[in-house]
Amino acid sequence: MMPETLTADQILEAAQDVLRRFGPSKATVVDVARALGVSHGSVYRHFPSKAALREAVTRRWLDRAHAPVALAAEADLPGPERLRNWLATLFDSKRHKVLDDPELFATFTALVRESSAVVDDHIAELTAELAAILRDGAEAGDFGPFDDVDRTARAVFDATNRFHDPAYASEWKQDGIDAAFDAVCSLVLAGLRHRP
Amino acid sequence: MMPETLTADQILEAAQDVLRRFGPSKATVVDVARALGVSHGSVYRHFPSKAALREAVTRRWLDRAHAPVALAAEADLPGPERLRNWLATLFDSKRHKVLDDPELFATFTALVRESSAVVDDHIAELTAELAAILRDGAEAGDFGPFDDVDRTARAVFDATNRFHDPAYASEWKQDGIDAAFDAVCSLVLAGLRHRP
Repeated sequence: MMPETLTADQILEAAQDVLRRFGPSKATVVDVARALGVSHGSVYRHFPSKAALREAVTRRWLDRAHAPVALAAEADLPGPERLRNWLATLFDSKRHKVLDDPELFATFTALVRESSAVVDDHIAELTAELAAILRDGAEAGDFGPFDDVDRTARAVFDATNRFHDPAYASEWKQDGIDAAFDAVCSLVLAGLRHRP
Repeated sequence: MMPETLTADQILEAAQDVLRRFGPSKATVVDVARALGVSHGSVYRHFPSKAALREAVTRRWLDRAHAPVALAAEADLPGPERLRNWLATLFDSKRHKVLDDPELFATFTALVRESSAVVDDHIAELTAELAAILRDGAEAGDFGPFDDVDRTARAVFDATNRFHDPAYASEWKQDGIDAAFDAVCSLVLAGLRHRP
């Protein structure tokens, strides 16, 4: 490949392959450059360090996984249905990630753990979507009222973590996991319901 | 020590010390016997295998950590206060375990992961306490009514796992963790509240 035509996205794609093949502990920038047929200098022109490259790959992976969830956040539904649909979409997207390609999921779970900034940004993005759903629902009289909608949004995120935190990935194909998800959703939705 | 005076509890105490000192991957029955000044046969007279001994140590550690929680389950309080107090006691007992002796906590977290039967029994015990609190609260008109109180008890357990699952231990000394606990408790309690 000609170095001058190299895009950041091509590097990230190659880096993801290299990370999957060699594992996060062994993959190097030189491996990525070799996979692309360029010098490691060409990679460093886009990403100033190995850490920056790893973080960019991790963010890209999370962003892609998050696309259907962001779409669900915008769904034109009454508050309770919109929240349940958002939580179900989040659970499904994580569950598919791990079942479709467990190796890549393990690789990225390790990479995500490496960068607390990436985790914090990811959680902030998800809880902001939750807060918007709660705010709209409260305006429509379905939820709340809330003293602190951001705090409640984080409580909803925390209360459902068995169904989105990769630490629980091994439980996501167990019998009864969908019933457990429904039970937690119903409990959370009952807790959010508007009581005049 | 005279082998004939050796009790199971002395063996478990010594085994806990050995596990802490050598780590779960290296500790052997011979190390435990040596610490007690007996032959490994004397240990095997009480525990038929290394796995049985490890499981017994793990169960004893969990039982001891659980004592104040079991007491809180029996507290003579109205349903909502009893549940909040039980959840706070569970969180406190786990948090103290990790802050008081992080090394022992890590050792036992690894041992607990080894035995899914121990984990399942521990969760069953905790959710049975929760179910009793919910049942009493429903009778008093504070909670429910519930279609399936055991399912709801498990939902409460799942919804609060950020505050009792050792996977989150690293977050238990963060600023704001108590506010986060309160927010989840309030959400869960609102979800359980009796609505006539």
